[in-house]
Amino acid sequence: MKSGDSATIDVPDSTASGGATAKGKGVTVVAAPRAGGWNKGVAIFDFILRLCAIVTALAAAAAMGTSDETLPFFTQFFQFQASYDDLPTFQFFVIAMAIVGGYLVLSLPFSIVCIIRTHAAGLRMLLLVLDAMALTLTTAAGAAAAAIVYLAHNGNPNTNWLAICQQFGDFCQKVSGAVVASMVTAVVFVVLVIVSAMALRRT
Amino acid sequence: MKSGDSATIDVPDSTASGGATAKGKGVTVVAAPRAGGWNKGVAIFDFILRLCAIVTALAAAAAMGTSDETLPFFTQFFQFQASYDDLPTFQFFVIAMAIVGGYLVLSLPFSIVCIIRTHAAGLRMLLLVLDAMALTLTTAAGAAAAAIVYLAHNGNPNTNWLAICQQFGDFCQKVSGAVVASMVTAVVFVVLVIVSAMALRRT
Repeated sequence: MKSGDSATIDVPDSTASGGATAKGKGVTVVAAPRAGGWNKGVAIFDFILRLCAIVTALAAAAAMGTSDETLPFFTQFFQFQASYDDLPTFQFFVIAMAIVGGYLVLSLPFSIVCIIRTHAAGLRMLLLVLDAMALTLTTAAGAAAAAIVYLAHNGNPNTNWLAICQQFGDFCQKVSGAVVASMVTAVVFVVLVIVSAMALRRT
Repeated sequence: MKSGDSATIDVPDSTASGGATAKGKGVTVVAAPRAGGWNKGVAIFDFILRLCAIVTALAAAAAMGTSDETLPFFTQFFQFQASYDDLPTFQFFVIAMAIVGGYLVLSLPFSIVCIIRTHAAGLRMLLLVLDAMALTLTTAAGAAAAAIVYLAHNGNPNTNWLAICQQFGDFCQKVSGAVVASMVTAVVFVVLVIVSAMALRRT
């Protein structure tokens, strides 16, 4: 353990005379054998993961939000156009990924505090709980959009829902990219939750 | 702290003379003031939550798997029938919820071990990681099925996907019930992850 670490073991002198009769009161023992450096590394890894997740979450929201295609032919009454606005699931996707991206940006300062104070267990606990919720939101948005994208690509003959990707190829490609980005975000969140739990065990 | 608890504080005699020069080696300090009873309560709560999740997960899989409706009229060439087999998303839902139910049943013995040995941090860690993954799978299945169910109820005029719930009312009702059950399972999993993290902090 380096001398610069803040892990200290406060053992009152009474333990020498009192023997093994410690009652758990007044004895504040912070036991962290060589956990300081490990915890700092984990906290930095956590911070980098958050940066990656911000990029993928906002990329997903932006790709979906700008997906818009107007076909080059039109009739007198109707112009053929596809946009994410047409499907409520895609609207939910944009909102959910924007919320997740915003949460991630707001969580960065807390992650930095975890790098500086490696033994902030309460803060890590808070981040873990919020990460688990953000993971749920990301997965829900991604899975719902994936179900609709699959339908747009393949259609379903049993329910007479026709595929629309023959006509709106660019739209489908962009939407599919957004779904992939949201799935990457979900994987990063799973890693974040696992890393937080491991760090929590060592604090 | 009760005398029956296994928390011990081994402080070698050299610390009295060595002062504050403890190097973190050889000093194995297990500090757990009054955490034993709290941890046992949490472990029992964890076990009960798992039982609830088993019921909801298997109910979701069963409701979806048995959803099948044949309309009372038919033409010479065609009989109108709806089943979960017709939509790949619903097939995924049944498989995913069955996997989650199976995992939950298999995790029960580990949960019981956590009740008996309240300081098994490694086991709790394993359960937390697996719970986070099961949460992801449950949410994905539930959200994807919810997107399709919404489409079946309301249709989408922009893509010419017509609602099928006017014809297949019973089918839609059963499928919606399955989606609600999967959402309840997801909520239970979020609580499980939070409880595990809190218990991990105290071990």
